[in-house]
Amino acid sequence: MRIKLVVSYDGTKFCGWAAQPGLRTVQGTLKEAVRQISGEDCEITGASRTDSGAHAKGQVCHFDSPVPIPSERWARVLNKILPDDLAIVRSTLVSAGFHARFSAEDRTYRYRISTAPRDPLLSRYVCDFGRPLDVDLMRLGAEHLVGTHDYVAFTEELDSGVLNTTRTLHRISIVHKPKEVAIEITGTAFLRGMMRRISGGLLEVGRGYRPMEEISMLLTERRSSLQLPVVLPAKGLCLHRIRYANPPRDHRESASRLAE
Amino acid sequence: MRIKLVVSYDGTKFCGWAAQPGLRTVQGTLKEAVRQISGEDCEITGASRTDSGAHAKGQVCHFDSPVPIPSERWARVLNKILPDDLAIVRSTLVSAGFHARFSAEDRTYRYRISTAPRDPLLSRYVCDFGRPLDVDLMRLGAEHLVGTHDYVAFTEELDSGVLNTTRTLHRISIVHKPKEVAIEITGTAFLRGMMRRISGGLLEVGRGYRPMEEISMLLTERRSSLQLPVVLPAKGLCLHRIRYANPPRDHRESASRLAE
Repeated sequence: MRIKLVVSYDGTKFCGWAAQPGLRTVQGTLKEAVRQISGEDCEITGASRTDSGAHAKGQVCHFDSPVPIPSERWARVLNKILPDDLAIVRSTLVSAGFHARFSAEDRTYRYRISTAPRDPLLSRYVCDFGRPLDVDLMRLGAEHLVGTHDYVAFTEELDSGVLNTTRTLHRISIVHKPKEVAIEITGTAFLRGMMRRISGGLLEVGRGYRPMEEISMLLTERRSSLQLPVVLPAKGLCLHRIRYANPPRDHRESASRLAE
Repeated sequence: MRIKLVVSYDGTKFCGWAAQPGLRTVQGTLKEAVRQISGEDCEITGASRTDSGAHAKGQVCHFDSPVPIPSERWARVLNKILPDDLAIVRSTLVSAGFHARFSAEDRTYRYRISTAPRDPLLSRYVCDFGRPLDVDLMRLGAEHLVGTHDYVAFTEELDSGVLNTTRTLHRISIVHKPKEVAIEITGTAFLRGMMRRISGGLLEVGRGYRPMEEISMLLTERRSSLQLPVVLPAKGLCLHRIRYANPPRDHRESASRLAE
């Protein structure tokens, strides 16, 4: 019986999603909680490996329940033992062909930049920039980034052996509020650090450090003579939601033609 | 040269406002920061002694600057050395008659109760109740609390030797949002624990544990046979703002007729 969990966390005190021995991670904490309830070890498979310090409102994972607990009750029993900074939003029964990562249609991340003076009640969730940004320029820059491109200039992925750095971004909105600028991006999949580097590049454009035209040059000239965009801190990043088709795509048919 | 500071903090990691030896407090942290800049000890006098774990967007304090730094620069230099969970919103020059506590006209606190499932990204700032509340009943109960009353049933102050437990509340609004109910109260001054007990009493009314009529009975029958309202956790509480007349009231003339 496969269970899908929608998971929310404040990433400040987690060393990211992916389980690592001796470190407090979201995946490791969830795995231990499921083990406490069922008495058995089981694999927790996540949709996105969020960075150390990054947050999530709608991370998704799945596991094969070792005990016959009704799917919707998993959220309740897990929430009783999970720490304050981690919660299950929803637990549902899914077919055996559902895979949190490979069945996903797209992912939406949001990066928040504070343009106001540092606010201690927000500081865990935003990058503190503290000055106004030219949002129109940022929007023009963002337009160049939408579509299917080689995002090699926006990742450190090359160092970790990933060869295909082409991805598709469907939509980038720059949300302008009185005290912050938020960059919301929906794409099929993201490279390591990509969201934080894209946000860094757009911040450089918005503050006048980088001509807007350089954004498209970064896409076409690969690791050229241009300075790479700065990587913004993880605390401003939040995995907002992961969308699945209804019914979800069966990963056993599609996994072969997908790569994250 | 007297400086007024408007101060914001995430109270989670502070043992309240008031300096205590060996504990991390807001007052102690500010005092140490001023000492680092000026090289001299000085007293920091706050408007409200917020509880351990309670937050502030607009706490106010004053100190007599031992060095000739322009008043508006104090915010900038202090913010450079203050920790992430504490910031100066504004620093201004005030007259020698200004007193953060005794010149204050009124104080506004907000208590947030979450009516949605526990959200790790909000959990530091709300009381997690997790179910709907009858907001109309809460509003009726709140009406009884406005005015000048003996709030002895809403404080533990008696134990600390305070004899006069009469205070004046100008306004109580119950703000109803999709996922939370916030209780915002403006009053001249508050007793110890008063805001958290009033919120507790209104929560009891809103969830159907206490008849609405008992709120006024708590005001008139003092510590009667009625069960006292529950004290809600400090983390849901935020000191929103402190209002001063323009120009501020000179405390040397008015301190004698005021008591917090």
